[in-house]
Amino acid sequence: MDSFDLRLPAVRAAYREGRTTPRALLSALRERAAALNPDFHLFIHLLSDAEIEPYLAALDERDIDSLPLYGVPFALKDNIDLAGIPTTAACPAFAYTPDQSATLVAQLIALGAVPIGKTNLDQFATGLNGTRSPYGKCRNSVHAGYPSGGSSAGSSLAVALGVASFALGTDTAGSGRVPAALNNLVGTKGTKGLLSTAGVVPACRTLDCVTYFTATASEASELLALTARHDPADAYSRANPQWNDASAFGAIKGFRFGVPAQLEFAGCDESPALFAQARAALETIGGEAVEIDFAPFLEAARLLYEGPWVAERYSVAGALMESQPDAVLPVIRDVLAKAPGATAVDAFRAQYRLQALKQYCDAVLAQLDCVLTPSIPRAVTLAELERDPVGANSLLGHYTNFMNLLDYTAVATPAGFMRNGLPWGVTLFGRAFTDQYLLSVADALHRELAVPLIGGAQQRSDVPARAARHDRMKLVVCGAHLEGLALNGQLRSRGARLVEATASAPCYRLYALSGGIMQRPGMIRDTANGAAIAVEVWELPSSEAGSFLAGIPAPLALGKVELADGRWETGFVCEAHGVEGAVDITSYGGWRAWLQRDASPQTAKPAVA
Amino acid sequence: MDSFDLRLPAVRAAYREGRTTPRALLSALRERAAALNPDFHLFIHLLSDAEIEPYLAALDERDIDSLPLYGVPFALKDNIDLAGIPTTAACPAFAYTPDQSATLVAQLIALGAVPIGKTNLDQFATGLNGTRSPYGKCRNSVHAGYPSGGSSAGSSLAVALGVASFALGTDTAGSGRVPAALNNLVGTKGTKGLLSTAGVVPACRTLDCVTYFTATASEASELLALTARHDPADAYSRANPQWNDASAFGAIKGFRFGVPAQLEFAGCDESPALFAQARAALETIGGEAVEIDFAPFLEAARLLYEGPWVAERYSVAGALMESQPDAVLPVIRDVLAKAPGATAVDAFRAQYRLQALKQYCDAVLAQLDCVLTPSIPRAVTLAELERDPVGANSLLGHYTNFMNLLDYTAVATPAGFMRNGLPWGVTLFGRAFTDQYLLSVADALHRELAVPLIGGAQQRSDVPARAARHDRMKLVVCGAHLEGLALNGQLRSRGARLVEATASAPCYRLYALSGGIMQRPGMIRDTANGAAIAVEVWELPSSEAGSFLAGIPAPLALGKVELADGRWETGFVCEAHGVEGAVDITSYGGWRAWLQRDASPQTAKPAVA
Repeated sequence: MDSFDLRLPAVRAAYREGRTTPRALLSALRERAAALNPDFHLFIHLLSDAEIEPYLAALDERDIDSLPLYGVPFALKDNIDLAGIPTTAACPAFAYTPDQSATLVAQLIALGAVPIGKTNLDQFATGLNGTRSPYGKCRNSVHAGYPSGGSSAGSSLAVALGVASFALGTDTAGSGRVPAALNNLVGTKGTKGLLSTAGVVPACRTLDCVTYFTATASEASELLALTARHDPADAYSRANPQWNDASAFGAIKGFRFGVPAQLEFAGCDESPALFAQARAALETIGGEAVEIDFAPFLEAARLLYEGPWVAERYSVAGALMESQPDAVLPVIRDVLAKAPGATAVDAFRAQYRLQALKQYCDAVLAQLDCVLTPSIPRAVTLAELERDPVGANSLLGHYTNFMNLLDYTAVATPAGFMRNGLPWGVTLFGRAFTDQYLLSVADALHRELAVPLIGGAQQRSDVPARAARHDRMKLVVCGAHLEGLALNGQLRSRGARLVEATASAPCYRLYALSGGIMQRPGMIRDTANGAAIAVEVWELPSSEAGSFLAGIPAPLALGKVELADGRWETGFVCEAHGVEGAVDITSYGGWRAWLQRDASPQTAKPAVA
Repeated sequence: MDSFDLRLPAVRAAYREGRTTPRALLSALRERAAALNPDFHLFIHLLSDAEIEPYLAALDERDIDSLPLYGVPFALKDNIDLAGIPTTAACPAFAYTPDQSATLVAQLIALGAVPIGKTNLDQFATGLNGTRSPYGKCRNSVHAGYPSGGSSAGSSLAVALGVASFALGTDTAGSGRVPAALNNLVGTKGTKGLLSTAGVVPACRTLDCVTYFTATASEASELLALTARHDPADAYSRANPQWNDASAFGAIKGFRFGVPAQLEFAGCDESPALFAQARAALETIGGEAVEIDFAPFLEAARLLYEGPWVAERYSVAGALMESQPDAVLPVIRDVLAKAPGATAVDAFRAQYRLQALKQYCDAVLAQLDCVLTPSIPRAVTLAELERDPVGANSLLGHYTNFMNLLDYTAVATPAGFMRNGLPWGVTLFGRAFTDQYLLSVADALHRELAVPLIGGAQQRSDVPARAARHDRMKLVVCGAHLEGLALNGQLRSRGARLVEATASAPCYRLYALSGGIMQRPGMIRDTANGAAIAVEVWELPSSEAGSFLAGIPAPLALGKVELADGRWETGFVCEAHGVEGAVDITSYGGWRAWLQRDASPQTAKPAVA
C-alpha cells in the first residue's frame, strides 16, 4: 500500500502475498478518501464501516483465486444504484434509496469487488466539467486551477487520487472521457448496450453508457470482458458478439487509423504538438494515418444539445424542475428549458438527420480500423468556467458529443502532459463492438508514449503489443477466390478487401482437384516436401464468414494456413481424400500461374484445335 | 397471353418462344387496365404510348437473356417516383413531378422491367382498406362487396387482375400485406432498409418499407435477390448479410414456428378453420408449432397509431393540411390531428416502451424459425367501412401493425378462400434479414395448401420444397465441443443450441491427435475403411461462426461432414498432416466413448496410481 498502486494485478499480488487484506485496504482507502474530500469533493457518500462490512464479510469465506476481482476497491458515480445507499444524481431533492444495486454493480460485487463510495457528478450527469454540483466543485487531481472534468467527476478523481482501483462513470456526451483526459486515466465508453444501464439514472436513455475509469487499458479490457453481459432488465442491452473478447490474437501492425482533417485546439499552443506525438506513436507501432472529413461527425455532435435529445434529459428531471425549480441548479435548468418546446415532429426530424450523418460516418469508418482525435480541444480553467459556464463546458465536448449518437465505441487514453503539469489525452474510437480491439490499440499507444501513470508508476514497455480481434477477420485464399478469379465475387459481396498478396510457408503441395462444378485447387500441408504457394490475404466482416463457410464444398475447408513470415491465418485447406484423382501442380507455385500456363497454349494456338 | 399468366417464368417463356413481344404485351395489358379502371380505380395514371416508349425502346437493343427482368410489366404505387410522371400519394394538391425515378424503380428498369402505371392508394399510405382516395375506391378483385385492402390498393389489384407481373407497394403498418391477403397474392414486406426507399413519399420514415406483390413466393424471392442492394441515397438503407440470399440449401424440415396463444378472428366463423388448416400444412411440411404469448406484439402494434409515430406522418402531410385543410381527406386529417400535440418527450418515452417490448419479442423469436398468424382477423365489407371508417380499418391491422416497429420481416401468403369466394391468407414473420428463408417456407406452404393462383392456375406440387438459409447455421462437432465437454462453452456463449445427436456416414476414421493444449480428435474421411462416428449437430448464429472459426487451430478445420442420413453439413474435419503421431480411435465410435473408456480405469482404481 505504500505506493498506492491500486492496479488490478498489484492489488491481487498484495492479497496473495499477504501484504494486506480487503478489510485493511478498504479501511486505509476510506481514511484517505475522507482526508481528500474537503478539498476535492469527490465523494457524495463514502461507505461507513457498517455499510461496507457485508461486502467484506462475503469475501471472508472466499478464496482469492475464486473471485477475479477479489477485494478490488471501486467507486461508483452517484447516478448508479448501490443497494441501501441513496442515489442523488447530485440533486438532493431527487434522491431515493434503492433496494437493489444496479445490475453492473451487482455483477462487480459478485466478482469480488468492494464498493467504497458514491462519487460526485455534474447534476443529472449534465455537464462535462465537474463543477455543477451542490456537493462541491471537483477540482483537477493534478492542478488546482482546473476542474476534474465531468460529469463523472468524482469517479475520475477516486482513481486518479488513489482511493479506488477503478471507478464507474456514465457517458452520454463525453462524461466518461473528458475527466479521463484531464486526470491521466483511461476512460472506456464501450459500445452502447454492452454494459447494463439497469439501475442507472438516465440522462438520455437512448444514448447512455456506463464507463470504466482505470489507470491502464489492460485493466479496462479485463473489466469489460468480465461484465459485458446481456441484461434482460435493460431494454437497451445488446449481446456482445464473440469476436469482441479480450483475447489477443496477433501483433499490432498494418492498421489504418483516421485523423480529422479539421483539428480544433481552441487556441491552445501545446495541444497540436501533443497530438502530433500521439499520431506519430500510432504510426511507430504499425498504424497508417488516413485524413478524414470530420464535418459530419461534428454536425452529429451539435444535434445532442441543440436538438430534441434534451427532451430525454427533461423526461427524467423535468417533473422535479417544474415542481421545485430551486432543487435544480440554474445551469441545468437552462439546458433543460428548451425541452418542453420540442415536438415529436422535431424529434423524428432530428433522427432523420442523424441517420443520414451516420450513413456517411459509417462509410468512413468502414475503411478504417479506428480513428484518433484529441480527447478535448484544450483544457478550460475553473476561472473560465466561472465566467462562461455553458461556453467553456461546450468546448470540452467538441470531440466527444457525437460518439453515442453515432453508436461508436471510444477509449480516452493518456497521451502526455501540458507544461503546467495538467494531463493531456487522446481518444481512439471505432465501430460498435470493436471495444476490445480499441483497448488493445490504446494499450499499445499508452506504452509507446511511455506516459507515467497516476501515482508516477511506469508501465512495462517490454511487453509486446498484441491486438485483440475486431469485427473483421483475415482469410487466406489460394484458388478461385483470388482477385479477379471466378469466385472472388463471394468475397467482394461480403464487403471483403484484399490486404496482401503473399505466399504460404514453404510446406504445402498444391493440387488441381477433380470433380465439382468448377476446377479448384487444394493445399495440402507437407513439411517434408512442400513449397511456397502464392496466396492472397483478404479481410472480411467476421459476421459474413459463416455464410461464406456454408458455401464451401468438401474436400475444401477453412482451417489455418502458415504464411511465409510464419504467421498462421484462417484460410483454405483441403482434406486428404480430395487428392484422389487430383493433379499435383505444386511446381507452378500457385493457382493463377497454373491457370495461365494452361490457358496460354489454347489462346496462342487456336488453329491447332 | 390467352391465360393471362404473367408470372415471371411464363413471361420469359412467352418472349423466348416468340409468342409475344414487350411492345405487344404492354399494349394489351394497358388496354386491359384501361378497361378495368372505371370499375376498380386501380390506376391513378396509366402510362401513355409516348410515356412507355422509352422503356420499350431500351429493350429493342437488348437480348432477352441479357436482362433478368426483360420486358416484365410492373405497376407501382403512386407514392413511389417514376421519372416524368406526377407522384400524387393520392392527394392531388400534394403532387409533384420527379426528374428521377426512385432508386428501386430505376433498378428494376435497368434489369429490364417495364412500368405500366402508377396505382391508387389510401391517401398518404394512411389506411389499410383502399377506399381512402379521391381517385376512387378500390373494390376487391374477387368480391364486389369488399375493399381491395390498402393502402397499396391499386398495386394489389394490378397483379390480381392480371395487368402486371408484379407491383410495388409500400408498407408501414400492413399496407403491403393486407391487400395481398384479400386478393390471393404474396405480399412481401422485407426487412427494413433492404429495398431502397429513396424516391418514396414517406409515411413514417423510420418504419417504411417498399413491398412486392406477386402471385408466388418464388417470384418475390427472385425480385428481392435482384434488388436488395445498399443505397447511399437512403439513410435507412442497410446492407444485406450474405446468408440472406436466394439459394436453397436444404430440405424444409425440423423448423419451429410460433403460433399466437391469443388468436383474434373478430367473430368470423370461417377463419379459425382456415388458420388451423394452414398451421396443419406447416406441420405437414416439417414444422413444429410452438404457442407464444402474443400480448407484447399487440402492445407494440398499438403504439403505432396511439403513439408519437403519427408525428412522422404529420411531418410529411402536416404543412399541406394546415394550409389547405380540404386537400386532405377528412379521415386522414383525423389521424394526423393528434400529431401536433405530441412532444419530443412523448416520442422518446414511446421509443423506450417499444424497446422494452422488442427485447421481449426478440427473445421469443430467438427460439423460433418463424411465426405464423392470420394476415387479418377477418375481412370487412365496404358497407362496414362506410359505417365505421376508422374502426373497420383498425381491425385489418391487428396482425400487421407491430411488424415494422419491431423490425421483423414478413410475407403474407395465400391460404385459401372464404365460402363467398373472398381470398384468405396467413402471414409468416421472422427476424430481420431472414427474408429469403421466410419466402422459401411461404413457397412450401403455398404449394402444400394447393391454393389456386390468381387467374386459376395451380402451382406445381411436385417440386420438392427447399429452404433458403437464414441467420443460423448448422455445425457438426465430434470432439471437445460436444455437449458438456471442455469447449462446449464456445458454442453456448455464441447462442448456439443442440439440434441433434447423430452419427456421421460410415466413412470416417477418428484419431486422438497429439500436441496442442488439450486433447482433441480429428475426423478423416476414408470411404474404404471408415466407420460411423458419433457427432452432434448444433445451430449457431451465422454471424458468430467467423469468430468461432478464427479460434480453431491446425490441423482442425471447418469443412463438410457427411451424416448418417446422407446430408452434408458444415463441421469439423482434419488435415492429413494432423494424423502424425495420433492414435486411431475409430473403434470407439466417438470421442465421448473414448474419453469415458480412458477415464473409467482411473476412477475405478485410484489405489493403483
